[in-house]
Amino acid sequence: MPTDRIFNFSAGPAVLPEPVLRRAQEAIWNVAGSGIGIMEHSHRGKIFDKIIEDTEQACRELAGIPDNYRVLFLQGGASLQFSMVPMNLLPADRTADYLLTGVWAQKAVKEAKVLGGKVHLAASSEATNFDRIPKPEEIRYSANPAYVHITTNNTIYGTQWRSEPAVPAGVPLIADASSDIYSRPIDIGKYGLIYAGAQKNLGPSGVVLVIIRDDLVEAGPKTLPTMLQYRTHASEKSLYNTPPTFGIYVMGEVFKWIQTEGGLKAMEEKNESKAMLLYDYIDQSDFFRGTVQPDSRSRMNLCFRAPTEELENKFISEATKRGLDGLKGHRSVGGMRASIYNACPRAAVEALVSFMKEFERANRAAAART
Amino acid sequence: MPTDRIFNFSAGPAVLPEPVLRRAQEAIWNVAGSGIGIMEHSHRGKIFDKIIEDTEQACRELAGIPDNYRVLFLQGGASLQFSMVPMNLLPADRTADYLLTGVWAQKAVKEAKVLGGKVHLAASSEATNFDRIPKPEEIRYSANPAYVHITTNNTIYGTQWRSEPAVPAGVPLIADASSDIYSRPIDIGKYGLIYAGAQKNLGPSGVVLVIIRDDLVEAGPKTLPTMLQYRTHASEKSLYNTPPTFGIYVMGEVFKWIQTEGGLKAMEEKNESKAMLLYDYIDQSDFFRGTVQPDSRSRMNLCFRAPTEELENKFISEATKRGLDGLKGHRSVGGMRASIYNACPRAAVEALVSFMKEFERANRAAAART
Repeated sequence: MPTDRIFNFSAGPAVLPEPVLRRAQEAIWNVAGSGIGIMEHSHRGKIFDKIIEDTEQACRELAGIPDNYRVLFLQGGASLQFSMVPMNLLPADRTADYLLTGVWAQKAVKEAKVLGGKVHLAASSEATNFDRIPKPEEIRYSANPAYVHITTNNTIYGTQWRSEPAVPAGVPLIADASSDIYSRPIDIGKYGLIYAGAQKNLGPSGVVLVIIRDDLVEAGPKTLPTMLQYRTHASEKSLYNTPPTFGIYVMGEVFKWIQTEGGLKAMEEKNESKAMLLYDYIDQSDFFRGTVQPDSRSRMNLCFRAPTEELENKFISEATKRGLDGLKGHRSVGGMRASIYNACPRAAVEALVSFMKEFERANRAAAART
Repeated sequence: MPTDRIFNFSAGPAVLPEPVLRRAQEAIWNVAGSGIGIMEHSHRGKIFDKIIEDTEQACRELAGIPDNYRVLFLQGGASLQFSMVPMNLLPADRTADYLLTGVWAQKAVKEAKVLGGKVHLAASSEATNFDRIPKPEEIRYSANPAYVHITTNNTIYGTQWRSEPAVPAGVPLIADASSDIYSRPIDIGKYGLIYAGAQKNLGPSGVVLVIIRDDLVEAGPKTLPTMLQYRTHASEKSLYNTPPTFGIYVMGEVFKWIQTEGGLKAMEEKNESKAMLLYDYIDQSDFFRGTVQPDSRSRMNLCFRAPTEELENKFISEATKRGLDGLKGHRSVGGMRASIYNACPRAAVEALVSFMKEFERANRAAAART
């Protein structure tokens, strides 16, 4: 670890690959030998043209995105997608099915309802505070849903779909993949639309990646505000208005970094191995415990608790002093959460587990008294 | 001029102050000694809290923003504001008055109409290809407009309101100030709402600054999508969802840079002086000519033409070789456009005028033959 950087377990915005940060530092002053920084280039000039083309190209190559899908770089985060999806894809006389696995899914449902859409909850894990992903046999779709919506990874609760749920033939599966996109191979053909805020696995906040099948691009009413129609951004190749040029540049560099690391399959192996370091330790510990049912555990956000809240506060405070930052869990779950996205180095997880062992040894007696 | 940077006259994204670029380079690796880069910090942590507070504070101090106005940092650019303004502020039974001074005003009108709003054009300079700002005596407001909308500076045509038009008592004046915000003092109290994409005078693309009076924050229907209500972002201090943290950081650094340069009055003097260097030269030249009526000339985007299109192409090509970049005018006007926002150094304008003189001398004979 370079002495001036610490280990960052933030849930997002989150750690980025250090080689990408070094490239961005250079590009801010003078990108591609142009004599002009990346933030200062016209989005209609040759330099940025090449950046956005290269970014899309790397994005497509990594996941093998079929030709009948558009790749869009939009603004407003997943939160605006919660509205754009039903605006474009949920006609007034249809029902959309949502799988309720956490706060972000709840917000997506809320925005669909705000627009007057009919929403059917096909399954929910709310009864157990979202500590698991619904099992296939629990899912009950409505008769003819306009689409099925899932949240692939639930940042707050630390759960993740291990694979896509089966959906009725011809019904588009729509995914908010903000917190696990490109952390593992993804079979794009199974989806109608995937959206992901960049700030966990792909880059800085302020860009949302949308991968959308051609037929859905054209499905939205032409009476919507221009900026809220997918067709606007598809036909203008994300340049209808000035896009977040710097964010797109960084995202492109992250894609290239994933390529040099071996692509999505290699990412999955590394992420799996990092996550297992922590889960294996928790499972043999009688001090720490995971908060999620084992078959639903996320490889991105690992939630765990100590015997008491007092010990949890002590843990977080001491960890922070050791340069292990961002470990406080979300208030909905409590305890600790380690977010270990693609760019989180294995050394960070090793340092965390090592500190956990030390903390457990030092505080076992205190725990036994409770 | 440092040897590895050239003079950048891009209309936007545009040149940024070099001290700001240097600060951003550092912050990308490790901001405020935190051991974590600016793009990697949680938007809910202490480091970013201070950044967004400092940014708002500097923004308020520079323009003397009264306490009854909120300062918001949103996404989607001015283009999404074209819709958010009427969504929030134009009830179905009211009319909004727009002053039509260019393409951006036309787009704002279009989005108001898309939503079913009634729009009255209170004045227009379209008949002469937007080469001027309407005179006070041309403006005819509707009986009781919900608001009056202006575009303070017209990037494409190179026109700028020298001062705000008078509006009927009690009617909010709403301004798209994307291309001249903070280039001169601004009397916020005259406006109900001001919005500005950051990418000309304030920072990178992907952030839009909104300054909005309290009563207008609450005017919008609560049935709108959450992300499209001003009240959402006002009550959550721009942190309802993950904001574009890096863009906000850079904007804060730009505000601090304006402060060290002497504030908005000093900016105005410098911008006036830079613009006059070019306009004075054009006015005494019988080779170059301005495209805008003199009393409507912008201090930000200076449009001019040479005797023939052939000479214009030659001018742009030779200027580019000399390190004077981004001078091609928009196709709606033709010829050349020099965008000289706050961060454009006087040396850039001097270099441009010097090259223009040289070009005029060398090509006067060619022009005389036409």
